[in-house]
Amino acid sequence: MRLRYKPGAKERLMSYPQYVIYNVQERKGKWQELFGNDHEIHVEIGTGKGKFLTEMAKANPHINYIGIEAYDSVIISALDRLIEADLPNLKLLNLNANKLEDYFASGEISRIYLNFSDPWPKNKHAKRRLTYKSFLKMYENVLVPQGEIHFKTDNQALFEFSLVSFSHYGMKLNYISLDLHNSDFEGNIMTEYEEKFSSMGHRIYRCEVQFPKK
Amino acid sequence: MRLRYKPGAKERLMSYPQYVIYNVQERKGKWQELFGNDHEIHVEIGTGKGKFLTEMAKANPHINYIGIEAYDSVIISALDRLIEADLPNLKLLNLNANKLEDYFASGEISRIYLNFSDPWPKNKHAKRRLTYKSFLKMYENVLVPQGEIHFKTDNQALFEFSLVSFSHYGMKLNYISLDLHNSDFEGNIMTEYEEKFSSMGHRIYRCEVQFPKK
Repeated sequence: MRLRYKPGAKERLMSYPQYVIYNVQERKGKWQELFGNDHEIHVEIGTGKGKFLTEMAKANPHINYIGIEAYDSVIISALDRLIEADLPNLKLLNLNANKLEDYFASGEISRIYLNFSDPWPKNKHAKRRLTYKSFLKMYENVLVPQGEIHFKTDNQALFEFSLVSFSHYGMKLNYISLDLHNSDFEGNIMTEYEEKFSSMGHRIYRCEVQFPKK
Repeated sequence: MRLRYKPGAKERLMSYPQYVIYNVQERKGKWQELFGNDHEIHVEIGTGKGKFLTEMAKANPHINYIGIEAYDSVIISALDRLIEADLPNLKLLNLNANKLEDYFASGEISRIYLNFSDPWPKNKHAKRRLTYKSFLKMYENVLVPQGEIHFKTDNQALFEFSLVSFSHYGMKLNYISLDLHNSDFEGNIMTEYEEKFSSMGHRIYRCEVQFPKK
């Protein structure tokens, strides 16, 4: 994604505390309280401009969504969407997702979405890929038992790496499509990336994987 | 594959007992004796016209290969290749592979190759796919502990089905390519099908999976 410095982004994010949550560590173990219900919490890591998660939140009012995005110049677009849609079941966190255990209690999240994550194509950067085993361990620590990751990408090498990584972690593959847009999968909600890259003829890969029983 | 009746195929196969083995149940547990060495045995199920396995046997003289093919009108071409190459480390079985346990003792096989297996595209025929769980159980019973299956196909739906089936059986994915001919995989030996379908622009999918510890 091209990142542009957006002056005032941080200030604008902080002026919508009902949508963008900052006192995150204090929320650990109490996220359902914030939403005011006992619905499941689904988290997207790398929410980008927020198209996927705002549309998911509209379509599924019985699910609580949290979108995490490190770049304030990007998540500001997600905030704009959220302000317009005025959704009670979506919150945004302007954070790096490498410390999820500081923000969520064990079992607090029911599902994690990874969409078009940075492929980090060089082998020496494999540890930075969001499907590397150290990240899987972190996800497992905050997910419910046998929780799921739903993963989409147009990057073939990242998808291959991820399938091997999931398998070696003992995760079960419950669904896979090697060409999502020509499959019979229903209800797909496209991310901004997905719209762009599929219109360029890229195949979209998608899978659902589940952590093993402990 | 188009099957043509070939008159005299059976007789010709039976006239080369050094290459085509018929008294198969008597060989159970004694295949290395037949090869006259203690090398690993790798089996291809659905050998077709034999290009893959004859080239593998040439390239790897320290491995014993067995090709199984149900259709005599097809395996006859594999026999022709084998006669020409005169390989001591390749035997052919003109059999349906659904009774492997009758032919091989537990742990007698070190690796199974499945290449361009019949996709059986209708859901009601899923049980006939060679990667269905009942087949995996059979393979596990004749393979060494933590034995491997190496699988190639151009059929996207069969590959997707198989990845889920392997995973639900508890198998580990050690390698995957979603576009073998544009990957850095070295030493690929093409089957007849693979040559034909890749020349038509089909992607070739390939994976290596391993049975779990018991």
